[in-house]
Amino acid sequence: MRINDNYLKLKAGYLFPEIGRRVSAFAAANPTAKIIRMGIGDVTEALPAACRAALIKATEEMGDRATFKGYGPEQGYGFLREAIAKHDFVARGANVSADEIFISDGSKCDCGNILDIFSHENQIAVTDPVYPVYVDTNVMAGNTTPANEQGEYGGITYLRATEANHFMPALPTTKVDVIYLCSPSNPTGAVMTREYLKSWVDYANKHGSVILFDAAYEAFITDASIPHSIFEIEGAKTCAIEFRSFSKTAGFTGTRCAFTVVPKELKGKAGDGTEVALHGLWNRRQSTKFNGVSYPIQRAAEAVYSEQGQAEVKALVKFYLENAALIRAGLNKVGLQTFGGVNAPYVWAKCPAGVKSWEMFDRFLSEANIVITPGSGFGAAGEGWFRVSAFNSRANVDEAMGRVAKMKW
Amino acid sequence: MRINDNYLKLKAGYLFPEIGRRVSAFAAANPTAKIIRMGIGDVTEALPAACRAALIKATEEMGDRATFKGYGPEQGYGFLREAIAKHDFVARGANVSADEIFISDGSKCDCGNILDIFSHENQIAVTDPVYPVYVDTNVMAGNTTPANEQGEYGGITYLRATEANHFMPALPTTKVDVIYLCSPSNPTGAVMTREYLKSWVDYANKHGSVILFDAAYEAFITDASIPHSIFEIEGAKTCAIEFRSFSKTAGFTGTRCAFTVVPKELKGKAGDGTEVALHGLWNRRQSTKFNGVSYPIQRAAEAVYSEQGQAEVKALVKFYLENAALIRAGLNKVGLQTFGGVNAPYVWAKCPAGVKSWEMFDRFLSEANIVITPGSGFGAAGEGWFRVSAFNSRANVDEAMGRVAKMKW
Repeated sequence: MRINDNYLKLKAGYLFPEIGRRVSAFAAANPTAKIIRMGIGDVTEALPAACRAALIKATEEMGDRATFKGYGPEQGYGFLREAIAKHDFVARGANVSADEIFISDGSKCDCGNILDIFSHENQIAVTDPVYPVYVDTNVMAGNTTPANEQGEYGGITYLRATEANHFMPALPTTKVDVIYLCSPSNPTGAVMTREYLKSWVDYANKHGSVILFDAAYEAFITDASIPHSIFEIEGAKTCAIEFRSFSKTAGFTGTRCAFTVVPKELKGKAGDGTEVALHGLWNRRQSTKFNGVSYPIQRAAEAVYSEQGQAEVKALVKFYLENAALIRAGLNKVGLQTFGGVNAPYVWAKCPAGVKSWEMFDRFLSEANIVITPGSGFGAAGEGWFRVSAFNSRANVDEAMGRVAKMKW
Repeated sequence: MRINDNYLKLKAGYLFPEIGRRVSAFAAANPTAKIIRMGIGDVTEALPAACRAALIKATEEMGDRATFKGYGPEQGYGFLREAIAKHDFVARGANVSADEIFISDGSKCDCGNILDIFSHENQIAVTDPVYPVYVDTNVMAGNTTPANEQGEYGGITYLRATEANHFMPALPTTKVDVIYLCSPSNPTGAVMTREYLKSWVDYANKHGSVILFDAAYEAFITDASIPHSIFEIEGAKTCAIEFRSFSKTAGFTGTRCAFTVVPKELKGKAGDGTEVALHGLWNRRQSTKFNGVSYPIQRAAEAVYSEQGQAEVKALVKFYLENAALIRAGLNKVGLQTFGGVNAPYVWAKCPAGVKSWEMFDRFLSEANIVITPGSGFGAAGEGWFRVSAFNSRANVDEAMGRVAKMKW
């Protein structure tokens, strides 16, 4: 049988496995080194008590045939979809209904799987730097040419997010069909203003494009003027899909629950020019290739919206943002310029002049036993930058910043 | 943007949502009817106590930052992969190692997603009748032409499983590249003998085909001569992928955990003729588009292999097989011919002469308020048949067979 040749177009490994390999090699060669991981954006604090209590209660229900749950709706249970619609959207003035919300086991899955419902002929736009999954999944789906010498693919329009444009790239001058936007941004920590988002919504509605809006980090927004959802922007329901996750807000990276909003008004074009609702296509995709999220896990996610859950999530976010402030201060102290970390759990830092991202990675690892993420792993425009994650214990952040102060600068 | 036109080739709804719609309409019109559902193959009995205890213990671990688990390996935790390798494969003489096992949230997901790593040029073979997901996911992936008047797609070779060939279709006379086999079979309940499976393995190795072997129901095999895994057959590691699930064995349909075995020896051909290992491709697919199964759920699955877990699973399987025996007897009593239900939780029954599957479905629903699955929903060769699931309470099975005896035959 023939394989999907598009996989052979992929560069080396996906960024985080590659970091993992380098760290493992270093740890093996330096068994006594106490490595502090500030690379991958993985939470470190306990799962909220409200979520654990709900998970345990639901597990106990599974022990009695009267309350046992078998297959649930592939789209997720009503109790969770309704809690999300109410708290995350309607409360913020975004008109999203429960049946436009699809519960899943992860935003990474949804970001990749969403391409199932699109043609391979669309022109894709990503910001650069960008979360590598957006690009890699398009390569795997056959939406691109092989990479050029810079590691960039034909079929993808790269929108450079630079210090000069405040990490808000200019809109494309040519037509693009599928646009990935992430706010708060992974990796730069920048947030998109209402006006900037509105300009994208207008662009997409004018050109019949779809915006894939990744709002996995919305809980970290501290600036009251910044939208948490693209559906706070007028006109977004005819041009956007939004990805959300409990991973970073409620510490679900190991518990697994997320959701995607596909508005009923949103339409794409078939080959013969007829308009087709994406909601129905995604519903068909999920009904056929997915069986819903574990019932006890959905109950744990529902508990995020309880009074206790909300208080615990707010405390977690506050804690990680305090870490971010300490990281910014620690890096600034040795003369490094930083961005982000105010409305986002990521600090985007500039390497000293002439130092490349992976060189910086290796220096942090060998001199301070700290794992950072090389900016070039997020795209060509990330070269000369690195990302530091604020997801860590306070003790580790303090220790890490102490070590940074002692590095050779 | 352009949509994936292949979705428009799909027939009506996926079988089970369609059944759901008809049942809902009947229930709305007949609010006092006590409907017994023997259609969808969903378990009804409590989740084993061993699994619940493990799930609760793991949830409690998530409450302490010292034992908290964030992102796990996308492929699953070693503790679960090793338990599976030991109990499900090595113990049966099948040489499968832990790192050939990929943990997932469901076999339906894996069966659909596996197509990501294959070219769209392969000729697909399915038995008929067959689990509809195999066909629908190939249509969605663009591996077929539109359906003809019989609802069959070009690009798919249908291998008829009939009473005459004991539901073991003859091997194709032309070359096919990707072959779906399911034993014990959904929907016919038939099991493949060692000799029959060996003939497929030889065919696949000779032609460079891959067998996608769905063994979701292997725990129901009572005949000691029948293989539980295709990897019990010599030569299978160079030609087969196997799908397994905890759904039907340990009652995980609502808890969600499954796994897929991709042997390291298994290779496909790239467009330029070079051989590429499918293990690496699937690993890349899962690393990029999946984030692993919830940690507490993986601990619950691990508990299936404990002494207590094994005893509980055996009791569950025995219980459902007793239901199957009662169903066979009840249907035989009114003169219906039945197959399956001995090594499988499904009974495959023949409609009275001249009666079509959906007509039988409607008669069962209106005359006896029983939901069955129309055989034609599984393919053209299923016309004139229906499937009855043994997943139910004993009280419901007894009540249902009493009602069947009073139907007009």
